[in-house]
Amino acid sequence: MNGAESLMRTAVASGVELCLANPGTTEMPLVAALDRVPGMRAVLGLFEGVCTGAADGYGRMTDRPALTLLHLGPGFANGIANLHNARRAGAPVVNVIGDHATWHRAADAPLTSDIASLARPVSAFVRETRRAGDLAADTAAAIEAALAPPGQVATLIVPADCQWDESNARDVRAARPEPLPSEPAAVERAARALRDGPAALLIGGPALRDRGLVAAARVQSASGCRVLHDTFFARLERGGALPSFERLPYFPEPAIQTLADARQLVVAGTRDPVSFFGYPGVPSRLAPNGCVRTELARAGEDVVGALESLADVLGAPPTPPRVEPRARPGLPRTGALDVAALGQALAALQPEGAIVVDEGATSGAAWFAHAAAAPRHTVLALTGGAIGQGLPCAVGAALACPDRKVIALQADGSGMYTLQSLWTMARESLDVLVVICANRCYRILQLELARAGHAEPGPQARRLVELAGPELDWTALARGLGVPAARAADAEGFAKELGRALAEPGPALIEALL
Amino acid sequence: MNGAESLMRTAVASGVELCLANPGTTEMPLVAALDRVPGMRAVLGLFEGVCTGAADGYGRMTDRPALTLLHLGPGFANGIANLHNARRAGAPVVNVIGDHATWHRAADAPLTSDIASLARPVSAFVRETRRAGDLAADTAAAIEAALAPPGQVATLIVPADCQWDESNARDVRAARPEPLPSEPAAVERAARALRDGPAALLIGGPALRDRGLVAAARVQSASGCRVLHDTFFARLERGGALPSFERLPYFPEPAIQTLADARQLVVAGTRDPVSFFGYPGVPSRLAPNGCVRTELARAGEDVVGALESLADVLGAPPTPPRVEPRARPGLPRTGALDVAALGQALAALQPEGAIVVDEGATSGAAWFAHAAAAPRHTVLALTGGAIGQGLPCAVGAALACPDRKVIALQADGSGMYTLQSLWTMARESLDVLVVICANRCYRILQLELARAGHAEPGPQARRLVELAGPELDWTALARGLGVPAARAADAEGFAKELGRALAEPGPALIEALL
Repeated sequence: MNGAESLMRTAVASGVELCLANPGTTEMPLVAALDRVPGMRAVLGLFEGVCTGAADGYGRMTDRPALTLLHLGPGFANGIANLHNARRAGAPVVNVIGDHATWHRAADAPLTSDIASLARPVSAFVRETRRAGDLAADTAAAIEAALAPPGQVATLIVPADCQWDESNARDVRAARPEPLPSEPAAVERAARALRDGPAALLIGGPALRDRGLVAAARVQSASGCRVLHDTFFARLERGGALPSFERLPYFPEPAIQTLADARQLVVAGTRDPVSFFGYPGVPSRLAPNGCVRTELARAGEDVVGALESLADVLGAPPTPPRVEPRARPGLPRTGALDVAALGQALAALQPEGAIVVDEGATSGAAWFAHAAAAPRHTVLALTGGAIGQGLPCAVGAALACPDRKVIALQADGSGMYTLQSLWTMARESLDVLVVICANRCYRILQLELARAGHAEPGPQARRLVELAGPELDWTALARGLGVPAARAADAEGFAKELGRALAEPGPALIEALL
Repeated sequence: MNGAESLMRTAVASGVELCLANPGTTEMPLVAALDRVPGMRAVLGLFEGVCTGAADGYGRMTDRPALTLLHLGPGFANGIANLHNARRAGAPVVNVIGDHATWHRAADAPLTSDIASLARPVSAFVRETRRAGDLAADTAAAIEAALAPPGQVATLIVPADCQWDESNARDVRAARPEPLPSEPAAVERAARALRDGPAALLIGGPALRDRGLVAAARVQSASGCRVLHDTFFARLERGGALPSFERLPYFPEPAIQTLADARQLVVAGTRDPVSFFGYPGVPSRLAPNGCVRTELARAGEDVVGALESLADVLGAPPTPPRVEPRARPGLPRTGALDVAALGQALAALQPEGAIVVDEGATSGAAWFAHAAAAPRHTVLALTGGAIGQGLPCAVGAALACPDRKVIALQADGSGMYTLQSLWTMARESLDVLVVICANRCYRILQLELARAGHAEPGPQARRLVELAGPELDWTALARGLGVPAARAADAEGFAKELGRALAEPGPALIEALL
């Protein structure tokens, strides 16, 4: 058995089943090992950002890491942006990066670079294997690091000779670290804070799934506190009869306004709320001065258990108030296709159990509001702000959940970053419907230019935030990548295309002209 | 004047005229400054790798840096792969990366990351501006670092408040550092080495332009040495009556064979020849054991002047032997379109003064051989091995040289990395003809799998090195990005499409089905 096979055996034995790959020469023994070790599915991405973003989406949906298989420093670098998102999502990911043979590094061949320096900003764990015999143990350590609750990015750098050299290491298997139990004292402090009021409870991370949402609803009913969730969450369960809470606004002014009355802020599964960007005269921290902050559970602790304990301590009944599902919105009437009509139509038609990957940016908010009344679904958001996350994340979600419809609500500007994802959707016959919100500009940047005092930008600035001249034709792009596509220019046409696309297994793409 | 304007004023005063941008919120004052400070042309790329690769190509053709304008760590990360190529090319590039306001960093907002750690592996200069008043001086320092011979990548991290705060710094202008004069003793040593023989002279970098090539031809005629040039060069002047030399082979075995008889190796403008990858049982260094290596000029020294001195010391006449231009190849006869026919047709029709960006990978070698007999042209190669360089580099070359036809000879697998480049070609009406060598696989990896002993790879490995299932349709992709496109499936059809496309200003794309 060579080192490469010992890596794959260790991964499979540890429950890792998917390898998202764009390999090169320094990964050839690992590529060959994919066929020699049963149990690992290999999926090719035509650009590394597809692989890392898919690993993020897969990790969010399965709580297990996929491997990414990437080629040296530059190949890894192409995947960094989506690893940044995965890091912010707390998604488990294990990157395997081939490197030059240990004895070839000193030659400083053209592809040589400092991979660890590139990896550290996005990785909680970085290790470079020194010999083939270490590779099984190094792989297990990387997987365990990735599984540390809620999930982390781990990066293993594997020189080519450590792949092809023989290994006589014994089989090894990574263990899943359990979250630490929450501190009863912290639960008591949080209960006192909520009783003192006026209080807000901000939830995020693992608290945004069924058990956490139910516990938060119990806390809310027992304490009367306001409950909010993160603006950009890794994964939110939503719709149907699930409790649903306010989303913290994106821009700092309304977010500050939302929290203005809070004297107590209890944070569960996330961090202190801060402004996404710094603006002149606007504070970084969104909670008001004098507001006392209490952390219910620290990183690595069982935040859902802590929320349940908190509800118990507050004397909440074990079952929260019943949520009456709201009436689902109807289809928009005929008329122009704008973000409101788009969001309404999607909320009206999205199937039970859909996974919606929302990189709609300014085009996504209307859908999010409407979809509170949709049937049960899962939302995956852009956690780290590194655009180009949506399409890859949809690939990963579809690989994780082949029985669920995945809908990528995708801004056109961001979508262009990693459009290669469409090809992987086609190759793997993934059940993904891509809705391109084609407003043909970086709308958020037009808003930001105005916020910065440039309401009437000059010609060069204007051209830097417009995607016209020429207009992108997403239907042609999709066809070029093997995905059937249609275009909709009005509300009725969009609803019709949407209904048609949702009735068939994907992949498919609708370009919605806004 | 705010900090952003002082940055742009300094850049313009220093002769920097082009800003390749994909900005975000933290760069808005710089975006606005593009219209307030005359003399800087802004060009939008829809992905950062387009911007950095274009800066590389522009730097190679002008010996002046363009600015890239990139958004925080993730935006910069998307540009790293092509900066790796720029670093290996010795191309001058100045990256300007916006960052959070200095006082907002501690909030660890979603887009916060360690930008410097990402920048160091590809940058000879990394500086983070601390206050608006420093920005002019910091910009000048970055430009001077980029201009250090032959050229370097410099990275300046500019927090948002340093852009929007007022600056009262005086205007400042970067000076171009001159190369150091070469050491007469080194020239003497090289002359002795060549006289001792059997000797090979390996040239690269600045030595591959007219003056260097002429000097190398004089050295060759006076000493009888063998002259070779780097496999992957930043820029090679070629064709017409220019002296032309052997290209060092790519794979180590033929490269080692090529150098086997050399007892003396003189290196000028490049580094010791090493294998691109390490293979079991193959040495990193390509020159034989016992071969004495002599460096004619060190990094930063005037290598062309040193070559001319060397020719003088060797007693070469001031003019090298006249090169009789070889007969240009004719068009291929009808038949299948393979890499030989493609290369022959392109060499037969490429216009005088063309700039050929060769990321053809396994499909490019035949053209390179034929093109030795083509009229004068410039070749830009993949210096760092980070694929996805060709299309962006063609964008930069076309921006640098609007009066010359740029031909991107582009492998399909590599081309998919940065296909967004086509949109910038369309928006800026760049005179680029893209020839996609569509073999629908990563051919080089099929060869590498076989080299690694997997001549019959398993089904998963096979699928990782194939681009079929579905096949890419480059004509649809090009149209989706605003570039007219055609497809050719046989030699005659390719020659016809090529002739038609070369007769018109670009952009245009031909998908050559190999």
